[in-house]
Amino acid sequence: PLETPAMEFYDILTGKYGKEAENLIYRLDYKDGKTLALRYDLTVPLSRVIAMNAELVRPIFKRYQIQQVWRGERPQRGRYREFTQCDIDAIGSTSMLQDAEIIAAIYEMMIGFGFHQFEILINNRKILDGMVKYAEVGDRLKEVCRSIDKLEKIGAEKVRQELAKSDISARAIKKIFSVIEIEGHHETVLDELEKIIGDVAQEGIGELREVRSYLSDLGINEGYYRFDPALARGLDYYTGPVFEVVIKDAGIGSVVGGGRWDTLIGQYTGK
Amino acid sequence: PLETPAMEFYDILTGKYGKEAENLIYRLDYKDGKTLALRYDLTVPLSRVIAMNAELVRPIFKRYQIQQVWRGERPQRGRYREFTQCDIDAIGSTSMLQDAEIIAAIYEMMIGFGFHQFEILINNRKILDGMVKYAEVGDRLKEVCRSIDKLEKIGAEKVRQELAKSDISARAIKKIFSVIEIEGHHETVLDELEKIIGDVAQEGIGELREVRSYLSDLGINEGYYRFDPALARGLDYYTGPVFEVVIKDAGIGSVVGGGRWDTLIGQYTGK
Repeated sequence: PLETPAMEFYDILTGKYGKEAENLIYRLDYKDGKTLALRYDLTVPLSRVIAMNAELVRPIFKRYQIQQVWRGERPQRGRYREFTQCDIDAIGSTSMLQDAEIIAAIYEMMIGFGFHQFEILINNRKILDGMVKYAEVGDRLKEVCRSIDKLEKIGAEKVRQELAKSDISARAIKKIFSVIEIEGHHETVLDELEKIIGDVAQEGIGELREVRSYLSDLGINEGYYRFDPALARGLDYYTGPVFEVVIKDAGIGSVVGGGRWDTLIGQYTGK
Repeated sequence: PLETPAMEFYDILTGKYGKEAENLIYRLDYKDGKTLALRYDLTVPLSRVIAMNAELVRPIFKRYQIQQVWRGERPQRGRYREFTQCDIDAIGSTSMLQDAEIIAAIYEMMIGFGFHQFEILINNRKILDGMVKYAEVGDRLKEVCRSIDKLEKIGAEKVRQELAKSDISARAIKKIFSVIEIEGHHETVLDELEKIIGDVAQEGIGELREVRSYLSDLGINEGYYRFDPALARGLDYYTGPVFEVVIKDAGIGSVVGGGRWDTLIGQYTGK
């Protein structure tokens, strides 16, 4: 396990989580004039550790970390200002095997905890990129993702309204929904995606095919995961596969989430 | 185990640890204008929990807590700005059996960790109170304690100098040293204390006799503890027995410390 300090310079945490999340960073002014912040998640601290200790990733650095994080939210049912996160990451490989291994670890954990009514939703940021290119709103990726991220919570109609309010044209919204509403068996979803946005999202679709073949090799029961083109994940730093675990019929949102983040460390080292 | 929030209102933490310690409290200004502080120890947070949940102490509340604390020090060998503390406390009884049980728990822990070259130093704040009354510098308890607390670290000569610099008379310093230099077998120390300051510190000496009889009942090997009239412990909130564990010949200062704090909770509730 890795442990990182509770406090970080405020500037290190900004520009990485997205605008809405950034408002929740616990920003604190210390008496010596420094602007500090409390740990917002365990990913940015990890990327700093890696940036400062490049030798760790020879060949691959795997770690888990269980520590508190702080978010300046209005406290409400299930949401606290201070809570514990548990992260598993693997650094140093571009292979989709890493993503599949993380998903497999989550699967083992859920089964180990005695859950059986769960589903791992999987998507790829490159598919979302392709989708907004197909809808010809490529410069509005963040707004679109932020809206479709709420699909489960507020329903399709409200997402349409929100997109319209963001000046996304009716034609573009129709195209976006033609992608995010794809559903069916794993192969069907990937085939459909290929048909509609294969020209702009082939890389993402290819990556998901790889993930699927590794998940199969790793013995993951294919009833426990599903490709969901509407899965966006809030944070800005994801670059490849993203995933989320939902408990069926529990109405409590996602209980686990994550994804590949390939460029965060480079923001420190310039590489 | 109990867990308490990392952050507390700054005002709650002040006036409890002593002046030198107070400078190390991580004071932070939050954007909404509130002055916050990071947890400095686990005792003041516990006393707040008890003050807000009086029903917990019927009849006795025992808890352990393992969490991070923060102190704005200059980082150096063995001293960090963020570190983990482990506390064991029992709330709700004035019996010296509680103090003896805590000491016994520390003893079991040290043995359990495989240490054998350790010594538990024990004193009582009421003996220190008596000592300064005997030296007729009763209004200078904190300064005197702060100086003799450094005895092990800087030696007797420098402590004398420091006391002289604080305008403690040569006669008073002599009296103070006649108390803090008492050593010998447990009974000898208590008898000597009784002879010199029995009129002003009888209660403290009586409490240590009780602790000793309970330690004996609890089967604690009497070679592992020692009554040390020079043991002061830095923090202001102690009111009765105080103790500290040193590893012999290791030169690393104390590794465990604590004591009875009877008035801290009353500072919240006015009782």
